[in-house]
Amino acid sequence: KMLGRVLCTVLFVGAFLSPAEASQGHISVVLLGATGDLAKKYLWQGLFQLYMDQVSSGHSFTFHGAALAALEPGQRLMFDVLKKLSCPPDEAPDRCAVLKDQFLKLSQYHQLKTAENYTALNTEIETLLRQEGLKEAGRIFYFSVPPFAYTEIARHINSSCRPPAGAWLRVVLEKPFGHDLQSAQQLAAELAGFFREEEMYRVDHYLGKQAVAHILPFRDQNRQFLDPIWNQHHVERVEVVLKETVDAKGRTSFYEQYGVIRDVLQNHLTEALMFLVMELPANVSSAQEVVQHKLQALQALWGLERGSAVLGQYQAYNSQVQEELQEARGYVSTTPTFAGVLIRSDSLRWEGVPFLLTSGKALDERVGYARVLFRNRAYCTQSGTLRDAGHSQCKPKQIIFYFGHGALNTPAVLVSRNLFQPVMPKDTWKEAEARSDLHIFGQPLSDFYMYSPVKERDAYSVLISNIYHGRKDFFITTENLLASWAFWTPLLDSTSRQPPRLYPGGVENQHLLDFEMVSGGVAFTLAEPAQLLDPGRQTPSDFRAVQSKFRQSPLVSAWAEELISQLASDMEEAAVRSVARSGQFHLALSGGSSPVVLFQRLARHHYGFPWKHTHVWLVDERCVPLTDSESNFLSLHRHLLQRVRVPYFNIHPMPVHLHRRLCVEEDRGTELYAKDIAALVANASFDLVLLGVGADGHTASLFPRSENGLDGAPTVVLTESPVKPHQRMSLSLPLINRARQVFVLVLGKGKHDITTLLSRVGHEPRKWPISGVSPSSGQLVWYVDYEALLG
Amino acid sequence: KMLGRVLCTVLFVGAFLSPAEASQGHISVVLLGATGDLAKKYLWQGLFQLYMDQVSSGHSFTFHGAALAALEPGQRLMFDVLKKLSCPPDEAPDRCAVLKDQFLKLSQYHQLKTAENYTALNTEIETLLRQEGLKEAGRIFYFSVPPFAYTEIARHINSSCRPPAGAWLRVVLEKPFGHDLQSAQQLAAELAGFFREEEMYRVDHYLGKQAVAHILPFRDQNRQFLDPIWNQHHVERVEVVLKETVDAKGRTSFYEQYGVIRDVLQNHLTEALMFLVMELPANVSSAQEVVQHKLQALQALWGLERGSAVLGQYQAYNSQVQEELQEARGYVSTTPTFAGVLIRSDSLRWEGVPFLLTSGKALDERVGYARVLFRNRAYCTQSGTLRDAGHSQCKPKQIIFYFGHGALNTPAVLVSRNLFQPVMPKDTWKEAEARSDLHIFGQPLSDFYMYSPVKERDAYSVLISNIYHGRKDFFITTENLLASWAFWTPLLDSTSRQPPRLYPGGVENQHLLDFEMVSGGVAFTLAEPAQLLDPGRQTPSDFRAVQSKFRQSPLVSAWAEELISQLASDMEEAAVRSVARSGQFHLALSGGSSPVVLFQRLARHHYGFPWKHTHVWLVDERCVPLTDSESNFLSLHRHLLQRVRVPYFNIHPMPVHLHRRLCVEEDRGTELYAKDIAALVANASFDLVLLGVGADGHTASLFPRSENGLDGAPTVVLTESPVKPHQRMSLSLPLINRARQVFVLVLGKGKHDITTLLSRVGHEPRKWPISGVSPSSGQLVWYVDYEALLG
Repeated sequence: KMLGRVLCTVLFVGAFLSPAEASQGHISVVLLGATGDLAKKYLWQGLFQLYMDQVSSGHSFTFHGAALAALEPGQRLMFDVLKKLSCPPDEAPDRCAVLKDQFLKLSQYHQLKTAENYTALNTEIETLLRQEGLKEAGRIFYFSVPPFAYTEIARHINSSCRPPAGAWLRVVLEKPFGHDLQSAQQLAAELAGFFREEEMYRVDHYLGKQAVAHILPFRDQNRQFLDPIWNQHHVERVEVVLKETVDAKGRTSFYEQYGVIRDVLQNHLTEALMFLVMELPANVSSAQEVVQHKLQALQALWGLERGSAVLGQYQAYNSQVQEELQEARGYVSTTPTFAGVLIRSDSLRWEGVPFLLTSGKALDERVGYARVLFRNRAYCTQSGTLRDAGHSQCKPKQIIFYFGHGALNTPAVLVSRNLFQPVMPKDTWKEAEARSDLHIFGQPLSDFYMYSPVKERDAYSVLISNIYHGRKDFFITTENLLASWAFWTPLLDSTSRQPPRLYPGGVENQHLLDFEMVSGGVAFTLAEPAQLLDPGRQTPSDFRAVQSKFRQSPLVSAWAEELISQLASDMEEAAVRSVARSGQFHLALSGGSSPVVLFQRLARHHYGFPWKHTHVWLVDERCVPLTDSESNFLSLHRHLLQRVRVPYFNIHPMPVHLHRRLCVEEDRGTELYAKDIAALVANASFDLVLLGVGADGHTASLFPRSENGLDGAPTVVLTESPVKPHQRMSLSLPLINRARQVFVLVLGKGKHDITTLLSRVGHEPRKWPISGVSPSSGQLVWYVDYEALLG
Repeated sequence: KMLGRVLCTVLFVGAFLSPAEASQGHISVVLLGATGDLAKKYLWQGLFQLYMDQVSSGHSFTFHGAALAALEPGQRLMFDVLKKLSCPPDEAPDRCAVLKDQFLKLSQYHQLKTAENYTALNTEIETLLRQEGLKEAGRIFYFSVPPFAYTEIARHINSSCRPPAGAWLRVVLEKPFGHDLQSAQQLAAELAGFFREEEMYRVDHYLGKQAVAHILPFRDQNRQFLDPIWNQHHVERVEVVLKETVDAKGRTSFYEQYGVIRDVLQNHLTEALMFLVMELPANVSSAQEVVQHKLQALQALWGLERGSAVLGQYQAYNSQVQEELQEARGYVSTTPTFAGVLIRSDSLRWEGVPFLLTSGKALDERVGYARVLFRNRAYCTQSGTLRDAGHSQCKPKQIIFYFGHGALNTPAVLVSRNLFQPVMPKDTWKEAEARSDLHIFGQPLSDFYMYSPVKERDAYSVLISNIYHGRKDFFITTENLLASWAFWTPLLDSTSRQPPRLYPGGVENQHLLDFEMVSGGVAFTLAEPAQLLDPGRQTPSDFRAVQSKFRQSPLVSAWAEELISQLASDMEEAAVRSVARSGQFHLALSGGSSPVVLFQRLARHHYGFPWKHTHVWLVDERCVPLTDSESNFLSLHRHLLQRVRVPYFNIHPMPVHLHRRLCVEEDRGTELYAKDIAALVANASFDLVLLGVGADGHTASLFPRSENGLDGAPTVVLTESPVKPHQRMSLSLPLINRARQVFVLVLGKGKHDITTLLSRVGHEPRKWPISGVSPSSGQLVWYVDYEALLG
């Protein structure tokens, strides 16, 4: 019987193709998981569509469904699916009926379980081709199977089912492709043992959605309009959003392991975002250029931190998990079902433009879109109603790629009429009728040029066609996949134990999931309801200790954040006072990690700081080039200097790198620096020196029992650190002690022991260099946070 | 009769004040122009208000109206005005009636025409005081007279009417204070011959408008809310607007000389803007601090260029001028009656934030306001109607100081409810009732916290009270005035002959006066209707000479401004290309004056320039310290480097100053620079070298017959200039010729001869070093302006 079907197929192939028509060769499509959900719902229909579209292409086809089930039951299951294949509305019913009949005859079921099964399949394909005298063009293996089965199947295909030389192999893989960077790398490495990169087609079905697939062509066809405005100066923000009304009920065994970031953001939304923000290749039909530019765009994104995301979980989720996974009553899931993430790019084009990715289950509506919102650069002199009418330049300007569902219930491309009338390919996109009753993002639809597809096609049809055409830009390359995981994994790690905000689900969520950008990240706009009710809640300033003394000098103490803010204000005040007095402010800053937050605060909040009249000196430096990541100066430059306007001449890095070598004594770097200080700083008395303290009691780069710098002349010295890089340059204690003011910043539990010790010991700089800080005629102030002070 | 009145007054002063109450001394107020329009409309009422407010202050008063008219008719005219003084609604009618009666008795008329008149006035005041045994507190002279009369009156006051030592003199001056920088300087110098700075109170009545006067107190009282958001990161734009419905009919003899910029923008709108954007003094009641911070804010504004403004004129204006000024039929006025101006500040706080000033006559409505619009930093997850309801963070956020008129018809302070509930002084501002029918800037009033004054007071009452209190921060200091003229005069000059866009007036203007920000300036959004019809219209680029050749290399030629703009664009293109290719752009720049305009253009218009990846080198340097005003680097730093974000490490000044001495051979500065180049620039081949040409044919610091640098190895050399400072450091010709691209910029008539000569001679670097520029494998382009090319 098996042979009969093969022969039948063979006859059929021959009957329907003249030799010329078949000259492109034969393609065998093998669908693994042929009786699964995805196959039933999309894949067979997609293969039938491929057949309808390509029946006259010059290729001949056979379709091989495969699964673990034995031949008889498998065959029955599969043909039950095939019989239900539908004819698309745009296809003539007669032709479709004939083609469907042919498609059924060209399709057969295989049990693929053992190595022998694969060998047998291979033999069948070869036999068929030989008998029919057909040249082989290629083979498509579509993996519609769970990922744990990948390796085994891949091994069999590689060893038994490769087409002969001259014909191609395309294996199609469905997500998930790992659940973090490491697992993705491992899976990629395994697959690389069986397939070459160009043979693998990883599916992200969003790339087959018509509105997503049209982003790059749209950008290409509308270059003349977009070129001047597709950048930080014109774009206010980019949003990529997928909202669902359904929840995870019935799927928690999958969902509990993944969560919304792995399920939607890491793949679908990231891919759509990349199409929007990548540099546009000269040739958008070059898969290679597209893939490469997309990868570069991914790699240019700023690293995500914990503060980059807000996470939520609908309230019923936890009990659904308990029930479906039979977890104990006390089980608490922290899997997010909602996420809002702020992404930024390092590229010049997008500097400062926020990209907001949002997705969640159990929300108020089902909708997906990617939206580019432009800044308003107009002033509309005429006011009131006129300002909001017609194509006024003062109305919002946006471009929306509408994935589907929602108010429009169709894929669409929308362009604000006050932007431009876009060029759209007439054969595939048609202008949609204005439905004046609908509003989108607060604007009536009549404010937009709106286009929808001439033929609506589901994502899998589009992707199957692209597999056939070898358009690798519609798929996820290994590099792309790993870059995406490399981008998302730090956020997943840092938030894995963070309890998400609970939300009731549906329209009840109200403003509970609104979020906003604050200091580099995002935060929910409304305080957690529980917090609002807590009467014992104290504002940070309630905590501030009354100023007291530490080592006979004034002490300022508070929680770290407030301490830094106080210190920054005090520094500004000192600077303003100094400039008023002498026209200048000589500030010597320490390296290390504690001051980074201080630098950021100074750069972001102290616009009144007289930077123009400030000289910035280093307290100490590591003997590395200034551009080395270990350099104190580099850190200072990154977090402060490049964000404020200190004149070039007023910046004084330590000359640790002279004649292209590091801290060589005969280059006399220390002398050079001391001379600069003597020449510029009156009386070599800095207006303010900012110091830290090490757990060993060191300060500046003056370590316990240092040979240099603890006493003697007020000068600049080379020292040795017990930790790498060992060689350092530092101001000496006597030079520090000439300062008008010295502020010492001590942060964190790690400093508690040394803080306690210092509160007891006297002046013993050889043991604890910091204890030698004692300005001869200046003022010393300690800024110690509660963690360091109280442990 | 005259004496009778004085005696009457004297008695009166005595009768109403007990000695204790009068212990603060006597104040004489002299209103010059006592029967003029302003006096009739505002000033007498303001003086009456002052009297009502201060009757129990311990000061006694007399009020002296003065004009050119003889005693009898002047007296009659003046008392006709005084009889009509009204009682404010918040004053008890009985008390007011009594006080009005007293006020009339304390007021008298004087003819002030001759020197004798002034002496007589002085004698009268002295006599009165002596007879009554009153101590003199001070004298206020209010100049409500045309500016041409100022000098004469000032001379008389100074020579005859100064109060004795221990009493103050305050002279109040009304605008116009000149019509450009030069005339304002002249007027200021004249006045300075008669009055000390602290004696002069220059009125800008906007500073007395309640909403304007409350800007600083509002910022002060709401520091806690505003501190984090009053900066470039949160503010999207600032608008200061005064729209009028009236036109200039009947006033064209004044208006034709001034126009809207002098009439409204230079003074009222600029002052209101300064209150918004100046750094907030620690003590806002310190007049000195306020005045000083305002001056700094003014001085931090970017210079205006022709493109900074759009100008309009209502259509009827020209015929009104013809009629009223009896000009000929063909007379064409270019006086603007509408202006929209884009202003930017150099301060860190406001970097990138547009300030838009707009004013015009014959517009659709009468309204004035200063508005700070904040960026939307929120994402509202719930969509549709909810997003726009309540206090959603996704709704616009703004703070509006509403000067009056318009829909609200009252001065007001409005703060979006999704921002914060402001602190307002309860005695002077009250929360206004929500009028749900009104919308402002597209939002219902219910979206705002809205406050209006408890007592509405006109600007002149407020100002007269401030004169009395000596609050100089409510007036324009000479420095402030000159800084404002220095800011506005270049725009007035550059647009003086530019025909403004004609507009019909009223609501008919529609979108005709809408404008938008484009490439550093503003432009009307709609194309000029006439221009659309004009087939012969040429865009500036049509003027550009077709690229041709100069010395066998490409030549770009145009008028200077356009040439610079082209050169800047070409440089950006080269930079972007280079960064795309190698990740870096090595740019070597020349000193001298020609590139200054280029540097400014690059800093202000080329946001896409990849500064972060650009290395800046010097082509040549004078042997002076880098901070010397002769230093090429200093000029480069001032005009370019401090305005863009080139990393510190990528800036490479020439080491002319080593070991605190200049260009000493044994310090090996040239070697050091050559080594840096070798280490950082691949193949020592700069991506772009920008050169100039001297009238003697020198380029870089390579002068005719130079011993160094014209041939030999590609290196850095010390040279001698025929002009001071003689010693120079320069890249050598062979090093320049290794560059990938060399652009030579030649500007101005002074270069015509050398340009002509160069077009004829061959390769003779010893005679004309520039003729030796000939990149071995790179490209050379000449940028020569028409003046240099055509003489």
